[in-house]
Amino acid sequence: MPIDVAKALGAKLNDTTATWDADQVILYHLALGAGRNPIDPGELEYCYEGSALKVLPSFGVIPAGASLAAMWDGSIAGLDFNPALVLHGEQELEVLAPRIPIAATCHSSGRIAGIYDKGKAALLVLEVDSRTAAGDPLFVNRYSLFLRGEGGFGGDPGPKDELARPTRDPDMVVESPTLPQQALLYRLLGDKNPLHADPQFAAFGGFERPILHGLCSYGIACKAVVDSMLGGNTAAVGGYRVRFAGVVIPGDTIVTSMWREGNIIHLEATDKERGTPVLTRAQITVR
Amino acid sequence: MPIDVAKALGAKLNDTTATWDADQVILYHLALGAGRNPIDPGELEYCYEGSALKVLPSFGVIPAGASLAAMWDGSIAGLDFNPALVLHGEQELEVLAPRIPIAATCHSSGRIAGIYDKGKAALLVLEVDSRTAAGDPLFVNRYSLFLRGEGGFGGDPGPKDELARPTRDPDMVVESPTLPQQALLYRLLGDKNPLHADPQFAAFGGFERPILHGLCSYGIACKAVVDSMLGGNTAAVGGYRVRFAGVVIPGDTIVTSMWREGNIIHLEATDKERGTPVLTRAQITVR
Repeated sequence: MPIDVAKALGAKLNDTTATWDADQVILYHLALGAGRNPIDPGELEYCYEGSALKVLPSFGVIPAGASLAAMWDGSIAGLDFNPALVLHGEQELEVLAPRIPIAATCHSSGRIAGIYDKGKAALLVLEVDSRTAAGDPLFVNRYSLFLRGEGGFGGDPGPKDELARPTRDPDMVVESPTLPQQALLYRLLGDKNPLHADPQFAAFGGFERPILHGLCSYGIACKAVVDSMLGGNTAAVGGYRVRFAGVVIPGDTIVTSMWREGNIIHLEATDKERGTPVLTRAQITVR
Repeated sequence: MPIDVAKALGAKLNDTTATWDADQVILYHLALGAGRNPIDPGELEYCYEGSALKVLPSFGVIPAGASLAAMWDGSIAGLDFNPALVLHGEQELEVLAPRIPIAATCHSSGRIAGIYDKGKAALLVLEVDSRTAAGDPLFVNRYSLFLRGEGGFGGDPGPKDELARPTRDPDMVVESPTLPQQALLYRLLGDKNPLHADPQFAAFGGFERPILHGLCSYGIACKAVVDSMLGGNTAAVGGYRVRFAGVVIPGDTIVTSMWREGNIIHLEATDKERGTPVLTRAQITVR
């Protein structure tokens, strides 16, 4: 049986440790396209440690990312699937620290928090809890992965997602051009999946060329919201969740539309050149 | 006496050790603007370890760069100067290894190899020898630094440089656009001089905005020559020297003109938008 829920649900992922400093934070921001206006003071706060360097909350997905290795190394009992058919469906981040530090050592522990039967696919939710070396909570990541072809095992279909944005025109719209080499830069943060660099590998996956990392689009949309609706205050974000609805070709422009409703900012992102959705059912919780 | 030749000439710089891997090499190439066409196989060899990753010879300036710290930490007896008035005048690199490895640990030892009296300035030549952990020679760097205001001490004016390019039209001309954020990316390689990031600091230095690192332009011109005249063969370069003649504003286009004469490729670089010289009296030795 490919998915053995009794064995896999609740299984612990290997603990991981990640260390970062200002250089890593700056590389992350540059990999999202920051610094396009290098003399704008707000942009320099993303790219220059000699300014009031700040950290986008979406950086939290980076140190936790190593926990996902458990998905590919066969260390989780009860899971047997084709890695080539896995899709990153959703991402949810809760920021627990008042702000993400510029430099830290962080310990992450993860587990299989949910396994749902979506018919054609199984939906796996990996929850990763990250803390400082002193044990203070930093953030929690929830990665939802579709294992295509592994559904139909008679399991729980999972909670129905009722998240919907307002139907009015967006309150704000921001365009974020990406660089043709954006994915080549972003992969230096750790996700070396050849889908983002190797044209032949991308063609096997059915893509015309290597695609941008979903989590790069995730960061780009986060920056768009922080810079426009939140006045550049990265610490104002308490949570950020998205559904990955489509791919971005590096070099295309990501258009992020936003609707504010109290402490919730709903957002959606599209690929401008292709007119296709990138992020849907997305929201940022303001604190 | 600010410059005491008897004391400073031949003085040893602190030994340094540098380690690099494919990620560092790729970051270097991206910081030179590589990957602008991310599906070109030749470009991928600069940016993707899943291809036949190659290393531009100009990368040799990076691991040796830490040796220059001795210039600023006051550890060289007989040298007393204003760091704000130092200009990087020339750079000369000899590649001794058959090719620069994708990953290595390298030990560098440097010394003050020359002190010349140029009238208004003293010219200091720092020679840095870099070897693998096993002691195999990798490369030698010679950094020529002008200490403005420190000339006139009655010293040797130094050898007269007779290097001149052919007077005919260039054999090839290559345009290399830079990104507005190019310097912010290049400084992650180690040279954190605020002149390349901080608008106020740059203004104090008399520049309208932060300027690109001279050694970034150096690498960009090297790549232009390798890609056009040398068919992408990074191992064909045995030596590379330039004079830094002017600055580049990030976002401008560097135009590299080349003349081949036997085993020597003469080159010059200009800033296209400003029409100003960037590199002059430059040559690559082909092996």
